[in-house]
Amino acid sequence: MIKVVILGAGNVASNLCNAFAASNEVSVVQVYNRSKNSLKSILSSIPTTTMLSEVKEATVYIIAIPDDAIKGFSETLPFKNNLVVHTSGSVLMNSLSENNRRGVFYPLQTFSKNKKINFSEIPICVEAENKSDQILLFELGGAISENVQFINSAQRAKLHLAAVIVNNFVNFLYKTGNDLLSEENLSFELLKPLIKETANKISHLDPKEVQTGPAKRNDLKTIEKQLHLLKDSPFKNLYQQLTKAISDTYGKKL
Amino acid sequence: MIKVVILGAGNVASNLCNAFAASNEVSVVQVYNRSKNSLKSILSSIPTTTMLSEVKEATVYIIAIPDDAIKGFSETLPFKNNLVVHTSGSVLMNSLSENNRRGVFYPLQTFSKNKKINFSEIPICVEAENKSDQILLFELGGAISENVQFINSAQRAKLHLAAVIVNNFVNFLYKTGNDLLSEENLSFELLKPLIKETANKISHLDPKEVQTGPAKRNDLKTIEKQLHLLKDSPFKNLYQQLTKAISDTYGKKL
Repeated sequence: MIKVVILGAGNVASNLCNAFAASNEVSVVQVYNRSKNSLKSILSSIPTTTMLSEVKEATVYIIAIPDDAIKGFSETLPFKNNLVVHTSGSVLMNSLSENNRRGVFYPLQTFSKNKKINFSEIPICVEAENKSDQILLFELGGAISENVQFINSAQRAKLHLAAVIVNNFVNFLYKTGNDLLSEENLSFELLKPLIKETANKISHLDPKEVQTGPAKRNDLKTIEKQLHLLKDSPFKNLYQQLTKAISDTYGKKL
Repeated sequence: MIKVVILGAGNVASNLCNAFAASNEVSVVQVYNRSKNSLKSILSSIPTTTMLSEVKEATVYIIAIPDDAIKGFSETLPFKNNLVVHTSGSVLMNSLSENNRRGVFYPLQTFSKNKKINFSEIPICVEAENKSDQILLFELGGAISENVQFINSAQRAKLHLAAVIVNNFVNFLYKTGNDLLSEENLSFELLKPLIKETANKISHLDPKEVQTGPAKRNDLKTIEKQLHLLKDSPFKNLYQQLTKAISDTYGKKL
């Protein structure tokens, strides 16, 4: 049984608690959070504390707090030589305090409070300073996911950048599509089958191969018409930039 | 039984043939295409011709050819006062020749040769000059889809623009994510669960509400790091523009 203490009580922390609670190989012995209020989102079966001095012994301490706070917080931990990991895509492993053995346990997914996540398909990216900790984190990941990968800090930085692009930027494009439909009193429902198909297509086909649209085929007439529709929109510049990037990729000069 | 002749033999034409063939309410009596070679992708049970003069009688003639060619082609049709529709998102209904009754039959989906499409969930956007043709096209759509909508040309132009954004632009972002992973010898498989979850999330939540990421929370440190990773990339400018657009949307000044 791997004993885990989770430090933090946000979306990642509460989702990890739920996933570990469903596993027979992991026991979350405690969740720590500075403020009592946020601990309400944690499963009631798990002991909690708001005092760092009362944190229990565990095999792994998982810091799941905002990126900016990880470094400073890791320096305040009142113990030494334990395995301490963070869950961030963009923070180096070496940002953690040297007082403890360092590692990373990064679940590559988007978490929101209102939606339960099925962890089994989520890639868990692990990193540690020494071999035995690597193996331990690999086991810990394996308890909740079928897809655990060793990823170093440089790789993780690129991976996180790619995640921002295919998640945050893509969601912003969904929002932009929705806004355009609202202008014509059309329902966002109209776009949902297309959004799903676009995401499903790349599960077995290379996105470079399946690119379509006016920019790819250098259809200047359609591009011109669409720019005209966007003439008063703040999105006009992005439409131009994205169109140019696609044209450049496929060797067409606009 | 609605008798249909399809003019064209590309992806939309062949997908429409397959969908109509599975319906009891529609009969594709013929497919016309200028070149014989492309007709090979058409179901062998459907009669074909390469001669416009040999085109059969039908209730509806569906032009499914490249946007630029629709107007000119519609003027060459050797008959009058029939119902002739095109399948394009970006071409006005009135671009069709006045020789015939005009309409639009626009399936809002992305088609590729290698992937069969299940039409039942695809929105079919129909438009016609007169009421009885509107009803006929609505019935024709209903034979293959559970989601048929009356959409006028102005609405369709915005809808097509939105479709370009959530399909073509989004696919380009998928490609960009894949490229970044390749640079670190990481598999695109890592991103697929995130891509799916991002698309699934908006099936029941407003994309404006579920936006996350460094740009949304004004996380300048992460943005700075990611721009550094992109310092030699043509995507750097787009990263900046998309980040700015998200920040502006959520009222944060970068």
